[in-house]
Formats: sequence, structure tokens, C-alpha cells
Amino acid sequence: MKVAKFGGSSMATATQLQKVGNIIQEDPARKIIVVSAPGKRTPDDVKITDLLIQLGEAYINGESYEQCYERVIDRFREITEELSLDITLLEDIEQTIKSVIGQDTSSISKLDALKSIGEDSSAKILSAYLCSIGLAASYINPKDAGIIVSNDPGNAQILDDSFARIYNLREKVGILVIPGFFGYTEQGELMTFSRGGSDITGSIVAAGVKATLYENFTDVDSVYAVNPTIVANPKEIRTLTYKEMRELSYAGFSVFHDEALIPAFKEQIPVCIKNTNKPHLPGTNIVAEKKQDEKCVVGIASDTGFSSLYVSKYLMNREIGFGRKLLNILEDEGVSFEHAPSGIDDMSVIIRDSKLTKEKEANITKRIYDELHPDTIIMHRDLAMIMVVGEGLVSTVGVAQKATTALASANVNIEMINQGSSEVSMMFGIKAEDLNRSVESLYHVFFD
Amino acid sequence: MKVAKFGGSSMATATQLQKVGNIIQEDPARKIIVVSAPGKRTPDDVKITDLLIQLGEAYINGESYEQCYERVIDRFREITEELSLDITLLEDIEQTIKSVIGQDTSSISKLDALKSIGEDSSAKILSAYLCSIGLAASYINPKDAGIIVSNDPGNAQILDDSFARIYNLREKVGILVIPGFFGYTEQGELMTFSRGGSDITGSIVAAGVKATLYENFTDVDSVYAVNPTIVANPKEIRTLTYKEMRELSYAGFSVFHDEALIPAFKEQIPVCIKNTNKPHLPGTNIVAEKKQDEKCVVGIASDTGFSSLYVSKYLMNREIGFGRKLLNILEDEGVSFEHAPSGIDDMSVIIRDSKLTKEKEANITKRIYDELHPDTIIMHRDLAMIMVVGEGLVSTVGVAQKATTALASANVNIEMINQGSSEVSMMFGIKAEDLNRSVESLYHVFFD
Repeated sequence: MKVAKFGGSSMATATQLQKVGNIIQEDPARKIIVVSAPGKRTPDDVKITDLLIQLGEAYINGESYEQCYERVIDRFREITEELSLDITLLEDIEQTIKSVIGQDTSSISKLDALKSIGEDSSAKILSAYLCSIGLAASYINPKDAGIIVSNDPGNAQILDDSFARIYNLREKVGILVIPGFFGYTEQGELMTFSRGGSDITGSIVAAGVKATLYENFTDVDSVYAVNPTIVANPKEIRTLTYKEMRELSYAGFSVFHDEALIPAFKEQIPVCIKNTNKPHLPGTNIVAEKKQDEKCVVGIASDTGFSSLYVSKYLMNREIGFGRKLLNILEDEGVSFEHAPSGIDDMSVIIRDSKLTKEKEANITKRIYDELHPDTIIMHRDLAMIMVVGEGLVSTVGVAQKATTALASANVNIEMINQGSSEVSMMFGIKAEDLNRSVESLYHVFFD
Repeated sequence: MKVAKFGGSSMATATQLQKVGNIIQEDPARKIIVVSAPGKRTPDDVKITDLLIQLGEAYINGESYEQCYERVIDRFREITEELSLDITLLEDIEQTIKSVIGQDTSSISKLDALKSIGEDSSAKILSAYLCSIGLAASYINPKDAGIIVSNDPGNAQILDDSFARIYNLREKVGILVIPGFFGYTEQGELMTFSRGGSDITGSIVAAGVKATLYENFTDVDSVYAVNPTIVANPKEIRTLTYKEMRELSYAGFSVFHDEALIPAFKEQIPVCIKNTNKPHLPGTNIVAEKKQDEKCVVGIASDTGFSSLYVSKYLMNREIGFGRKLLNILEDEGVSFEHAPSGIDDMSVIIRDSKLTKEKEANITKRIYDELHPDTIIMHRDLAMIMVVGEGLVSTVGVAQKATTALASANVNIEMINQGSSEVSMMFGIKAEDLNRSVESLYHVFFD
């Protein structure tokens, strides 16, 4: 039994839904389908979920929301009419939106319920369409699927009990179409996951039913070895391990958020990323373990927006607890750090700029001065991080040489190297302005 | 005004003392002399301080100590007779030893007082000898010099008040000879520094009198760019910064313990390491700042005896406080760490084996499992660390490339790289068995 998840671009138009229907029809093992809300039809289009959020916010602020409402209905009408689906389906969607707006609930609950309508309607439409082409399909509400979550609107977490309930879906007959992005609390209240939550639903369901494969259909052919906006036409990655995927996702790989895959990873469900528009391409497989490749580097990820807090103090390494106290100050200020390389008398803490407000930075600096009496504190800004990722990297002679040679030949000064903490990656810190030529040079050294 | 410190080998024989006399005579700025106890005359000789410790331990254990006593007196007699010094000097030394043995003090105090007699007698002999060759020299007891220390026998720490008192030595006329290795508490009790404490005295006095130079006379021509037992006839280092010296000392450079230099460093006193036997050689200068060299690497230090505690946990980097808690556990067990590189889901903590008993290791491992619930804990053993050291290293393109190329060409797998925490060094972790060929290869790349 496979779980197939279709993203927003796969659900955006009737034509796309027909492709989805073909894909489902082709493989009888595709028994459980999880869907996103209809996405953009063209690059400057608006996703239905965004329209629903606008609608909800307008209503809450007492503004006119009718135009938004009409745009949502128009989008669904376009799809249902083109697929010749029964008019009652569209009426049902209209009724659902009106009923949510009319409910006597908190603004937060109302917004969460409205946001979920995109996925919910998508699932209803797909199941109706599958029936219309002769497949035995049915819509399953997440409550009935067993997706029980914490009471945390917009950031719901799956509860462990869910998986056993979801397992029961195996008993159901026919193809089951489940809307992604939301679940219900034990008390029956609807809660959405964080944005991109259809991937989370797909992964949860795949784990719950112990699928043989979790297929994630998107609009890209595969995961690439490097960011295609930096290197044109980069190599595709055929097979990745979970660990490799996680290291790559961390620094700028945007195929999907790696945290979404946690439930699947925990159950060791293999994941396949495929393109709805070219379903016969092999895509990228993400697996728990793979045979060691001769070329151990599978990908190069990169991201900007980092700063480094450098603290030096003569004889720091004689001072038991210095590093711990420094990290404690960050923790008190709610600032998580990415890496904290330390030397004899020096320590650097790499922080994402997004985690560091001016106020937090001032507090942290003041506390370090007052409590740790360092000789120097310097904040280095505009750093970029590059991850060279691959299983076996740590035990292969010469990888660091190749990487540093690539950076030197691009005339890039390496601000930071962190190798050895992770078994599957090597991290380089450089100035953000050097990023593109660093990544290009590294790509050519490892993939040409 | 210069402070010159002469080590044990410079004080071991009459011939050596004559060389010391010449050195002092040659430069009238050499006004304050700090001396060690007479060291070994030949490789299998015994240092006088070790004889004094034997003597003290024999006395404390109620064993016969007379033979030890005779050996000590013989050593001093050999020197004083050869230098034709007055017999009352030797009688004074004999009297001092007897008086310490006879004192009604604790064993610890007695041992500390006995240990100090080597340096104390050395200073008396040198000052008498300098007078005999026509120099106006006088012996100054550390108490009179103003060296006031904490009550911590064998590990006394200088008190801040001392420096102002020592400054008054500038007013004294003639050459002052001060025994190294000990000071006195405010209550007047004698306390020794840790072993090698004459370097500490020299550095304290140089800082106190605000010397223009602190000369440290030993039996080596200079500090070498690499350990001479690994690479034959390595290059000499002409000029080092304090920071470079500290990084080199950390990992196996044994010219002297860098902590001894702290007082001099704090006052920015330049330090010169010279050879008593070849005083006209330039030696090695250690300074606060130096002009940036084109070749930024000044030395390669290395040491064995490290282990790495590897901890991995899926989504570690989302868990605020993980690193801090891990370091906290080490701190609770009194284990200081050297480096703690961290990745996304992994963290390694490098610990000196000498700091980690079996029991501490078991406690730490258990607590990490119980409190942090990691996926994996692995202790990697038999690691060696190599430091490539040089000011400007962090801002020079290609240093990492050269270093990693050297290691790859020696077919060495790099377990760990830590660059960027320190501004003057780059650290490599490798297997201890690969150490010598790694260091050789690095030396040839940077110095040939």
C-alpha cells in the first residue's frame, strides 16, 4: 500500500487533476491519497489558501469579504465545471464556507477552519472526479482518518495515539482521499498544521498505515545536487538517505520542509519525490540506508542570513563552564544557535539572523560582558553557510581537500570550517557576498 | 630595565654559572635576575629540587635522609668551590636545610620550604659569584621582592597587590638576584608555585617592574616551527605573538608552559627565549603584535591523548538548550572540554583523556541518556589534535586548502576540522596513529 500526496500545483486546475487521476489509476497500490489546496495556475496567481486567509481576515476585521468569497468559489467552479462534476459538490463547498463564517467561535478557530477548506474541498473534488472515471474512491475527513492533534491552531502537533487509529484505514475498501493540512483535537476541534502542512499529513498517514512507499508529487523532476538558481541544470539526485535529506534541507533546499518527513522517517518508510507532470521520470528516493557510493558527496546546500558571535577570553579553556554559561545566556533570551565552534581562548556561536532581534542581541552582549568578563565580543554579520553533504564523507580521504581547493580557486576566504560533528556533512562559513561563486566552484569540483 | 631568568641547565655547574655571569655582564640593562635551582649536569643526573623532595619525603616518613642531604650539599659544594666562593655561603645553605628540617611545621609546609632551597641557594650563589667578578649584585628574598601569594602550597597564585610592591625594585641599586619558584603569604608563610615555577617568578617580576624585556634563558636555541622529535632540524621561529605562543603551547610545545607568561602578557612585556650556551643567537621573540607576514603559518603543534564524545539526536538543533545541557553534565562531573563542534543533529565534545576517568565517563554517558534522550552516544578514542597556527591565518585564502592537501597526500582521514573559532589557528582531529606522517606532511607544505 502506497500513500501518494499531491501538492498545490497538482490540484490547481482540471487538467492537473486529470493527470493526478491518471497517476492514481496507473498503480493499484496507490490506495491512500493526500491532497493540498489548489495552488497557483500561473506564477502571478493566488493560492486558494491565501484567498481563504484574506477572506477570514476581512470578516474578522469587519471588512467586506464578498469579493474574496467569490474568487474562491470561482476557482472551485472552474475545476468542477471543467471536470463535469455534479453541481451539489460546489454547493457543498459554498455551504461549508458560509457555515464556518457563521459559526460562533473565536477568531483563531474561525481562521483555522477557513484555511482548511482549500484542502478539504480539494479532497472532495478529487474523490468525486476519481469516481467519475470509474474508480472506487471516497473522501475521508481527517477526524475519521484518525488524525488527532494538539490544541495549537496553526501549529498543531500530531498525537502519538493517532498512528494506531490511522492504521485502521488499511481495512477500508477503495481509494481514500484525505485532505492534508489539518487534524482534530480529542475534543473534536479543527486545528491546522504549520504552513506546508499537507506534507505533514502525507507523512503521518504513510507512517500510520505503514505504507511501502510515500510518494510526494510536486512540480519538480527531482531533488537537485545544488540550488538551480545558482548552478544552471544541476545533476539530479536519485537516492538520498534521510540524514542527507535533513542536512540538505537545513541549508536552503526547498523541495519541502524536512520536518514534515519526521513521521515517515521514524517508521523508515521510503519516500519518493516525483513530478505530477512527468510521472514516468524516476524522481528522487529518500531512504533510511543506501549502498555506499564511490562519489560520497550527494549535494551542496547553502543559505544566507547568519551571524557569528565571537567571544574571546584569555585562558578560556581553563574555565570550566564558560561555554555552558555562554549558551545559557542565549537560551535565557530564547535564541537557539546553529553551531558553536570553540578554540582555546575563543568561542563562536553561529546564529540565524531571523532569531536575533536588536533587543535580544543587546541583552546577550551585555550579559556576556557582565557575567563572563570576556576580552572581546564581536558580531560578524552577513555570513553564508554551505553544507557539503554525503554519507561516508567523514571516512573518505580527500573530501576536505577537494572542497577547500574549490573555495581557494574561487578566491574565497573561509571564515569557518566545521567538520566532524556530523557524520554526513562538512560545513563552511563564508561571507554572503562570496556565496554564488563558492557554490559554483564546489559544484564543479564534486559533480563535473 | 630587563628581567633575565635562567633555567636549571644554566645553573647546573660552575661553567654554566660563568656563562650566566658573562651574559649579565654584557648588558647593563639586565638588572633583575631570576634563577632556577641547579638542574641536570648530564642526561641521567638528578635535579637538586628532586633531591630535596626525596630528602623531605624521607624525613616525613621517618626514613634516613642523610644520604640525600649529602648529595644536595655535594652539588652545591662542587659549584661554590669551582667558583672559589666563600665557604660561609655553603655553610649558610647547610644551615638553611637543617633549620627547615628542624622547624615545628606541618609536613606540607616543610616540603614546600625544602623544595624552595634549590632556587634560594642558586640565587645566593649567583649573587656571590657576580660580586666576585666585580658586579654590584645582591640576593633578594621573594618576600623582600614583594612576591605575595595565596595560601596554596605547591600551587600558589600571585596576589594582585604584589605587582605594585615589585615595582619598587626599580629603585634598588645594582643587580638583584631573586630565587624563582616561591613567594610568601601575607602571613609570611613560604609557598611554592607549581612545577616550573621559576618561569612564573620571572614573568611576575618582569610585569611588576614593567621591564622593557623579559629574557628567558634555556638550553634551546629557539622555539621551533614543529616538534623536533617528529621533524628533524625544523625551522626556528624568530617572532611569535602571545596568541600564537598560546595556541602552540596548548598542543605540545614544551619550551615552557604558556600560563607562566600570563603576567608578562598582561603587561604586554616582550619575551625573548634564548640559549645560555649560545647567547649571541637571536632566539625567539614573543610579542603582543607583529607585522603581518606573507607566510602566515608560524608553527604546527600536535598532541595525542584526546577522545571525542559524539552525541546525535534527530532534530537536535530545534531543541533550545541541548548543547548547554550537555556541557552542563560535563561541568557537573568536573570535566572541562577542549572543543565542542556541533552540527544540525549532532554534537561532538573533545576531551583530554587525562580529564576523564572511567567512572566520570560512565556517569556522563548515563546522564546524557537519561536526561537528553539522544539517539546515539559514541566515544571515539585515540585521537590526536594538530594545530596549524599563525596570525592572519583566518583572513588568508588557501591555508585550509594547503593543510587539507597535505593531509590527503599523506593518506590521512580527517576526523574533525575546527576553523573559525580562533583567529590564529586551525585545528585538525585525526587518529593518533596517523599523527607523525600528518605533521611531517603539513610541515613540508608550509615550511619547505
